[in-house]
Amino acid sequence: MLAFEIQYRVCYADTDKMGFMYYGNYARLYEIARVEMLRSLGVSYKALEDAGIGLPVYENYSKYHQPAKYDDLLTIKCQIKQMPSVRITFDYSIFNESVDLIHEGKTTLVFMNMKLQKVIKVPSEILKAIENNLE
Amino acid sequence: MLAFEIQYRVCYADTDKMGFMYYGNYARLYEIARVEMLRSLGVSYKALEDAGIGLPVYENYSKYHQPAKYDDLLTIKCQIKQMPSVRITFDYSIFNESVDLIHEGKTTLVFMNMKLQKVIKVPSEILKAIENNLE
Amino acid sequence: MLAFEIQYRVCYADTDKMGFMYYGNYARLYEIARVEMLRSLGVSYKALEDAGIGLPVYENYSKYHQPAKYDDLLTIKCQIKQMPSVRITFDYSIFNESVDLIHEGKTTLVFMNMKLQKVIKVPSEILKAIENNLE
Amino acid sequence: MLAFEIQYRVCYADTDKMGFMYYGNYARLYEIARVEMLRSLGVSYKALEDAGIGLPVYENYSKYHQPAKYDDLLTIKCQIKQMPSVRITFDYSIFNESVDLIHEGKTTLVFMNMKLQKVIKVPSEILKAIENNLE
Repeated sequence: MLAFEIQYRVCYADTDKMGFMYYGNYARLYEIARVEMLRSLGVSYKALEDAGIGLPVYENYSKYHQPAKYDDLLTIKCQIKQMPSVRITFDYSIFNESVDLIHEGKTTLVFMNMKLQKVIKVPSEILKAIENNLE
Repeated sequence: MLAFEIQYRVCYADTDKMGFMYYGNYARLYEIARVEMLRSLGVSYKALEDAGIGLPVYENYSKYHQPAKYDDLLTIKCQIKQMPSVRITFDYSIFNESVDLIHEGKTTLVFMNMKLQKVIKVPSEILKAIENNLE
Repeated sequence: MLAFEIQYRVCYADTDKMGFMYYGNYARLYEIARVEMLRSLGVSYKALEDAGIGLPVYENYSKYHQPAKYDDLLTIKCQIKQMPSVRITFDYSIFNESVDLIHEGKTTLVFMNMKLQKVIKVPSEILKAIENNLE
Repeated sequence: MLAFEIQYRVCYADTDKMGFMYYGNYARLYEIARVEMLRSLGVSYKALEDAGIGLPVYENYSKYHQPAKYDDLLTIKCQIKQMPSVRITFDYSIFNESVDLIHEGKTTLVFMNMKLQKVIKVPSEILKAIENNLE
């Protein structure tokens, strides 16, 4: 439905003893990809939080086809495949410089009024931003 | 089938701006839990690696019911629910001090001959260690 | 003046491509050591924060004599060598299982009223806790 | 002597409970800055490692003037102030978007033949790359 791409250079801090990106560090890449995707739609995650709306992660899934290696320049493709309601799901596909699909992931986050700690519906500005970018 | 528990104190390094454990940092807890579980069975992951056998992660899944908060003393229950073959799967349930189930996870790793970068069957010492601890 | 020790097992998440603990990850060890030292003196860093007092880091220094390796069981010796005033300094010495001194560090933190974002004097409960443990 | 700049966006993974970048995470920024600086001089750190030369960190120093906040777009200025010999030192100054100097750091690394685990002199290609960029 909606797609966006960022590039990310694997640094030493990301690697582990195997010489590959540590399996827990993909979460950082996902985060950067979805926040930049929202920014590209005109939505600032920081501004959402400043307005009292948070997006805690509810579910996260990762599939490791091939390792990401030190100094690899990765392409992370981030997609929103269905309209968000009280939740929003981002899908990720990660490619190395040889354009191999090395990794897939998916994160579901929940819209929350942080003060009341209550689940809320997706803010209308996000719905509009997505709709405006569909055509 | 087989269960093991560790405790883990949430530190500042684990937390993020929401005051909770960052969603990517649970992978570290999973890792510590499964490595200590293997150690309790008499299997050293380090010795496996020194013998040329690695266990890269193939799949990882996390479900966040409630946040883990700063300074919480968590209990991580790690389970092996089926006999490993070329893969081994660990299930995790994480509880806070009020014994609420706050988090569930699952990691599947692949046995590999690291030099040949070839998938292998589970080493017999691991199979035996699991079988010996079933009764 | 005051000394305290903790043990820490180096995990995969800590390591980098060299097979050693990544140089930025020692900060986590320092943090765990000083927070547990305070706890052993009867001071909860969490309770301090809940009472509006924070301890942001002002200065940090690390010297890497030898690497900490995967699965090493490290001993971290934490010391308070001078009475705190508006700042408190912790010194660390890290030893491996062969009792080699592999690392030294030092962190200075500032006592702050977090709401007013103003530097304050060390809370009297911390001063007393240190004094009571000197003899 | 030699200066280079990169920009870095503070992400959620970088932050801690105070809402600021965790004090241990600056090491990652330093690393990215110095590796990109070397790349800008025509020196690939990855190629060095592939040729058997490593650069383990020997000393690291950080001074925290003001916090780096979530979503801040930081400018990291990296400098080589003296010609390297068996060691190389990088100085960092970090600025926020208001061009306040919020942080200073310094890292000293050692040139090593990784196979022999022996300290060596700075490779001539690095010396030349620095000299060529001085004028």
